Amino acid sequence: MPSSSGVSFTRGEHTLGVSRELHALNRRRLCDKLRSTLDSADGSFVVLQGGESTTLYCSDREPVFRQESYFHWAFGVEEPDYLGAVDVAQGRSYLFMPRLPASYAVWMGRLPTPEDVRARYGVDEVLYSDAVGDSLRAKGARTLLTLRGRNSDSGKQSAEAKFAGIEGFKVDAGSLFETMAELRVFKTPLELEVLRYANRVSSEAHKEVMRRVRPGMYEYQLEALFLQKCYGDGGARHVSYTCICCSGANGAVLHYGHAGAPNDSPIADGDMCLFDMGCEYYCYTSDITCSFPANGRFTADQRAVYEAVLAASRAVLDAIRPGVSWPDMHRLAERRILEGLRSAGLLTGDVDAMMEARLGASFMPHGLGHLMGLDVHDVGGYLSADPPRPTEPGLRSLRTARTLREGMVLTVEPGCYFIATLLDEALRSPKLSAFLVPHVLQRFRNFGGVRIEDDVLITADGHEMLTQVPRTVQEIEALMAKD
Amino acid sequence: MPSSSGVSFTRGEHTLGVSRELHALNRRRLCDKLRSTLDSADGSFVVLQGGESTTLYCSDREPVFRQESYFHWAFGVEEPDYLGAVDVAQGRSYLFMPRLPASYAVWMGRLPTPEDVRARYGVDEVLYSDAVGDSLRAKGARTLLTLRGRNSDSGKQSAEAKFAGIEGFKVDAGSLFETMAELRVFKTPLELEVLRYANRVSSEAHKEVMRRVRPGMYEYQLEALFLQKCYGDGGARHVSYTCICCSGANGAVLHYGHAGAPNDSPIADGDMCLFDMGCEYYCYTSDITCSFPANGRFTADQRAVYEAVLAASRAVLDAIRPGVSWPDMHRLAERRILEGLRSAGLLTGDVDAMMEARLGASFMPHGLGHLMGLDVHDVGGYLSADPPRPTEPGLRSLRTARTLREGMVLTVEPGCYFIATLLDEALRSPKLSAFLVPHVLQRFRNFGGVRIEDDVLITADGHEMLTQVPRTVQEIEALMAKD
Repeated sequence: MPSSSGVSFTRGEHTLGVSRELHALNRRRLCDKLRSTLDSADGSFVVLQGGESTTLYCSDREPVFRQESYFHWAFGVEEPDYLGAVDVAQGRSYLFMPRLPASYAVWMGRLPTPEDVRARYGVDEVLYSDAVGDSLRAKGARTLLTLRGRNSDSGKQSAEAKFAGIEGFKVDAGSLFETMAELRVFKTPLELEVLRYANRVSSEAHKEVMRRVRPGMYEYQLEALFLQKCYGDGGARHVSYTCICCSGANGAVLHYGHAGAPNDSPIADGDMCLFDMGCEYYCYTSDITCSFPANGRFTADQRAVYEAVLAASRAVLDAIRPGVSWPDMHRLAERRILEGLRSAGLLTGDVDAMMEARLGASFMPHGLGHLMGLDVHDVGGYLSADPPRPTEPGLRSLRTARTLREGMVLTVEPGCYFIATLLDEALRSPKLSAFLVPHVLQRFRNFGGVRIEDDVLITADGHEMLTQVPRTVQEIEALMAKD
Repeated sequence: MPSSSGVSFTRGEHTLGVSRELHALNRRRLCDKLRSTLDSADGSFVVLQGGESTTLYCSDREPVFRQESYFHWAFGVEEPDYLGAVDVAQGRSYLFMPRLPASYAVWMGRLPTPEDVRARYGVDEVLYSDAVGDSLRAKGARTLLTLRGRNSDSGKQSAEAKFAGIEGFKVDAGSLFETMAELRVFKTPLELEVLRYANRVSSEAHKEVMRRVRPGMYEYQLEALFLQKCYGDGGARHVSYTCICCSGANGAVLHYGHAGAPNDSPIADGDMCLFDMGCEYYCYTSDITCSFPANGRFTADQRAVYEAVLAASRAVLDAIRPGVSWPDMHRLAERRILEGLRSAGLLTGDVDAMMEARLGASFMPHGLGHLMGLDVHDVGGYLSADPPRPTEPGLRSLRTARTLREGMVLTVEPGCYFIATLLDEALRSPKLSAFLVPHVLQRFRNFGGVRIEDDVLITADGHEMLTQVPRTVQEIEALMAKD
């Protein structure tokens, strides 16, 4: 039983046990912050809506539940249909659990009691959710702080808490969202432990994929292997996003892997592979891309593109630290990629002029990286106090334009792709075409792309690398040469 | 490209290629049926809503898309956000696809054209979904038949087609639902080919799990292996339902595997395993349970319970054929289980009297089986012309009470469980307790359960077995003895 050990989540001794203190600390941080910003915290209760159980369409098929991220941050509850509350002034926390008929035990196993739930998650009290209003009033709640705001990646609104009788309270939907999003940007040591673990599990699974890939296999067979390694070895039942398993020209399709392009191509000898896959553990995500030749040996062209992207990655990793602007890092990566492509003969001319013309966006149309945490594209990228979204090509795809600070976790994922529509646009553009060497570029038309994606923590004097996979050409060829 | 070969779906040469004729035939069956039931088919168009793309909560994380089953039955489209229509009188079929900005090609790959979609799925015409109303009117639509009805397993309403301007048509929401549900009950030869394939893939994966299970492993490690075999070997990206991987006492939790009981126990030497897992291929499902000792050798007690359930399974398989009532088969299974438990010394007294007292429901609280097809609990169980849901214990859990007919596909899944709440209820019941031998039953308190679940097609003179896994004690021990 996790509860006896202070652990709220584990998947066995070979996996990570996560302390329930992780969530208690998050709630304390939230109360501290709200006390310093609210006019009066007295009688103010944060009320959060947990994820709800669903079924697919009108069928009775239930997808495996995954908790809503804000709720998970505060409470860590693994099951659906909960509500949670925190008394801001007192710091006391409450969970409201569904009251299930006793007969459900036949289908669900022994039903947890409120005391079971309290012991596991370490909140102060657990009540049933059929009398939330009365319970909150009895605890002294007058003003409810609910979560209302817009996710800057999806454009969707957060789900505010709702329960019968909520109209009897004063509801303040304006104070919570930015406060919680901002707190989620900065990871605590307890959260970092889980993020490190998820990254380790994904790193090991990527290495296994690189060892076992062979020309002739289908892309999804490596997706299946990755999923099995993460779950079977690491206890990670979910991935943070749909696996992107590209071979050859598919590497130029940035969101390959979706239902319209479901990782279903056979991998050819001579193809580059670009595999972007990450598991999550107890809702903490990872996001890693490895690019490598399917047959284990780089050609000269593959090496040239790969090393241009690797130079970008290493330049950024050398430079990132608190105080650095993320858009500047994006520009630095672009510059190294353009230099690499020029050295390899695909481009010609002055790199400063290329930068001025925004040529980099023709080869790397996405942002350099994004905040990562309970969501793979984590929240807090464009809060009201932050720099706004840039408008220039490439830079406008950044999911944040913030200045880096200690405790942030981000992906660093420079890439170089040969995307037909973008190459054709560049060739037609008077401003860009002068830099292109068409007859060399032509050779790369079906190359696909290279992306090198690591996850890093910003530390006081630089970064901590969370991802541990082979990155140099030599390291990759050595790993893939083994049986 | 699937389209050139008449195949609308495949995952490579080692997997099944599915002919687009499957869906054309379903549409013809639908038109034929509607022509015979509608007052006038002239100007009547069936309009179906395809599944829509979603993201998890307010994040931008997209679950892997799975098509809505009625829509899939008629059109087989793999991607979200489509609408489909069929001109009932003319038999002509139309798909309406989303019009995506050209810039999406950078993220999604080359965007399919209407002609690509038409060629792949074999409908008569493909249009964009931004002018559905005008297009339908131009094709002669006056009355739209939409899908409105209640799923008898979930209690949820189906999603009716919706588009801007639908209010300009006469909408008939009453004629379609029962007609389509009834057609879905009877599988065509083309559908059976896919169902057989999904069952073969799941059967092979179950066998691999039985070969590789060892005491000391965690239940979810076998779930991970099953998923990998189905996807990697069979091209089946989805499972039909959350895997239920029980060891020991967990075998008595009928819906084990959900978020509150996530297959996270270590498997002990001496445990029975009860693994209920099935993949789906191109939305056609499978649903198989294997029960076996974790260490590969049955104890006398395990054998006694297992053989009671196997006797029930084989008795039902011997008896099922067109004209047989499904509730009668449920009773037959109960009888064999009760006989087996009496032989093993757990029960005493007259089996007819046990049946009269409904003792069977204390050991098998679920129904004997259910229709299976595009949904694992398939539609058509309780349509208005069918026998109503029984009210007696056990029988009332049946998902259909129909009389069997050729072309139906069902699961046959007798089980025997030692569920504390049900045993205690029976021991307290004056009517039931007389049949129980408490000191023997006590030995089985932590046994868990046994379920043997096969998928069968009802044929003219009996059934065709779709599931191919070891079933006798000897077969299981022989398979598990191999390395």
